[in-house]
Amino acid sequence: MLSGMSRRNGQLQRALWARVEPERSRRLLLAALDAFADHGFEVATTRDIARRAGMSPAAVYVHFSSKLDLLEEVIRIGHEAVLEETQAAMRDQTEPAARVAAFVMAFSSWHARHGKLARVTQHQLGSLPPDRLGAIRALRRTIERQLSAELEAGMATGEFHVDDVQGTVFAILSLGADLARWYAPDRGREPDSIGRLHADLALRMLA
Amino acid sequence: MLSGMSRRNGQLQRALWARVEPERSRRLLLAALDAFADHGFEVATTRDIARRAGMSPAAVYVHFSSKLDLLEEVIRIGHEAVLEETQAAMRDQTEPAARVAAFVMAFSSWHARHGKLARVTQHQLGSLPPDRLGAIRALRRTIERQLSAELEAGMATGEFHVDDVQGTVFAILSLGADLARWYAPDRGREPDSIGRLHADLALRMLA
Repeated sequence: MLSGMSRRNGQLQRALWARVEPERSRRLLLAALDAFADHGFEVATTRDIARRAGMSPAAVYVHFSSKLDLLEEVIRIGHEAVLEETQAAMRDQTEPAARVAAFVMAFSSWHARHGKLARVTQHQLGSLPPDRLGAIRALRRTIERQLSAELEAGMATGEFHVDDVQGTVFAILSLGADLARWYAPDRGREPDSIGRLHADLALRMLA
Repeated sequence: MLSGMSRRNGQLQRALWARVEPERSRRLLLAALDAFADHGFEVATTRDIARRAGMSPAAVYVHFSSKLDLLEEVIRIGHEAVLEETQAAMRDQTEPAARVAAFVMAFSSWHARHGKLARVTQHQLGSLPPDRLGAIRALRRTIERQLSAELEAGMATGEFHVDDVQGTVFAILSLGADLARWYAPDRGREPDSIGRLHADLALRMLA
């Protein structure tokens, strides 16, 4: 039987993909995500992705011109989802400490909740050639700037004491991003519980 | 011209491998490390590893019975090096705060300094089958316990305030381990400087 938390995680995972249209593109992206997560981008084949999506290899090319297009789209969707979720979490908060906590809670719990997508997004970025990295680098910088702006706001009011803004931003993001490497849902920690812990640790880093 | 710091990094990297004997095994392990870092374990071939080491494919099997043996040995060496370096760094310190700072400084700067080995060690562990993970899991637990023991020592004296020892240990280790994903030496941060920043942030997490 699913716990309430597991059910909610499943709902949030489906919600992330539900808006991708048409449905056949969504099925292909989810199949590509599974294939990249299982074998890595280099080893995964378009044939395997088509099979997982229940389509013919030729049908893949109706929607995506290459395996690289699928990877780029999966990684873009991962980054956009993180950006939207952190923005939404901060929206109702006005004070820097509450906004940092909301950001970190959203960022870390996202990486725990969407483990497979987080792993492909964070660890297979290196398979994209430089000419496909522009939009994704811009999304990463936007995510980083959201956080560094809050650090600077809290330093201006005197509530944060930070020696190295960029280094501290990277360290806070590492708490969540590294979940893609080590977090496993069967270890007894729920994504929201990890998110709350990381929010507390991040605020301690700024005190 | 190499800076003093770059020269020191090069020396420390050579020192890590210098004790691997015989020299032909060392050459093969370094070639395997390069091949795994460039292509990933699944795609790298014994033929390519042999070529990089300047040997025939058959000569590989004099020293290692499979590509998997090479990966296991590279990952074991990576973990043992981290364990030795953190132990050595803490040896001269007696107070929990100084011992935590020494541990984090050593752990994080190691991951920045040995980027290629850190990447293969942290991100290709999943290519080892479960029956080859025993010794490596034991090394990981030993590294984690070194740090959790210091947190508990500092909590006992009242100088650390930690709500979740295991979660905080994983978070501190994430600062360093995640360097394997994002750190690039050409971004203007020296390994020792990253290590000092992370040591400061870790102590803040415990305050």
